[in-house]
Amino acid sequence: MRLFQERGYDKTTMRAIAKEAGVSVGNAYYYFAGKEHLIQGFYDRIGAEHQTAARAVLDRETDLHARLAGVLQAWLDVAEPYHEFAAQFFKNAADPDSPLSPFSAESEHAREASIAIHREALAGSKAKVPDELADVLPELMWLSQMGLVLYWVFDRSPARERSRRLADRGARLTTRGVSLARFRVLRPLVHEVHELFTDFLPGMAQTAVAVRKRPEDDR
Amino acid sequence: MRLFQERGYDKTTMRAIAKEAGVSVGNAYYYFAGKEHLIQGFYDRIGAEHQTAARAVLDRETDLHARLAGVLQAWLDVAEPYHEFAAQFFKNAADPDSPLSPFSAESEHAREASIAIHREALAGSKAKVPDELADVLPELMWLSQMGLVLYWVFDRSPARERSRRLADRGARLTTRGVSLARFRVLRPLVHEVHELFTDFLPGMAQTAVAVRKRPEDDR
Repeated sequence: MRLFQERGYDKTTMRAIAKEAGVSVGNAYYYFAGKEHLIQGFYDRIGAEHQTAARAVLDRETDLHARLAGVLQAWLDVAEPYHEFAAQFFKNAADPDSPLSPFSAESEHAREASIAIHREALAGSKAKVPDELADVLPELMWLSQMGLVLYWVFDRSPARERSRRLADRGARLTTRGVSLARFRVLRPLVHEVHELFTDFLPGMAQTAVAVRKRPEDDR
Repeated sequence: MRLFQERGYDKTTMRAIAKEAGVSVGNAYYYFAGKEHLIQGFYDRIGAEHQTAARAVLDRETDLHARLAGVLQAWLDVAEPYHEFAAQFFKNAADPDSPLSPFSAESEHAREASIAIHREALAGSKAKVPDELADVLPELMWLSQMGLVLYWVFDRSPARERSRRLADRGARLTTRGVSLARFRVLRPLVHEVHELFTDFLPGMAQTAVAVRKRPEDDR
């Protein structure tokens, strides 16, 4: 990460990374098939840190707005040290066909873990959620987190104060949206939004299949 | 545009542009204060071409889905020659604080013209729109066009066929959303979504003020 931050992603070679880590190039390639795999490792790590950081609010709060705002603020806390890297790395990750995109097949593991946090935020809240939306809402909540990440990447306000306000406002909006989902007339719209993302972001389709295949007692 | 396409935006200088155009550097700066201003000129030109290309469908159709899908397809037609440029230019325009962002104060003129196309698409349709949403819906429709543009920038399918399908699906979704706006219970959500964008994308606030200031007989 230090090399990526100093030199930029494109200019950092596996050779340089191996040298800094004090291992042979062959050894580095044994563990990581390429730079992209190091980034997937980074995604997994930041995801695990996020899960830990969100623990307190998920164990304490039952209000959906508080839970979701807490989850998003926890992500901003965990990601803060990587803000500068994220800004220059963005052009690699913004392409949905890149393995480095959060929507790629390669990011499936990190994405599924991140969606699981939203699933828990929703399931553990006192918000009433119709069964037919229990699978799609966490994915849409995660997509809104991706919107926050996009905003955060370009946020130059001190201590990312604008992103923090957006996290709170976004959580409020999502909470209102979830509470409106009790109206039957709205549910087809929610499904249609979800289908649109599933059909047009290839990685999302894979996630949807994985969710459907989970054994019932896992849900 | 040819120089930008060949060399990339960052590496093209005003000096090189002036030389190609057969004018002095001083003369080039007399008309355009910098490269960003050339891009604003490009935004204005593509906007004017879009307006012309959307004319046929706006004069013929009264169905909102057909009108909106037509407006989006017209944009894809007009933008196609610049696809390669857009892909490399994207990193300059993605930053909402850049004057080159479609959300910047500098892009106000091009943005307002583009929102006007959506305003006409909505106003000339047979869809019933509550008065209180007449100003905010065209801005949200334009924002969804920006989502399509983001997708299109990275679309490598032949003849941008995926973007074309997304345009149609997005238009269908928006049409359904507009038809649901007849339910009073939903309107606060629409306003809240609009306020979120207005508060967090600085250029949008300016647009909202400009719309409010238009004389009534202009609307």
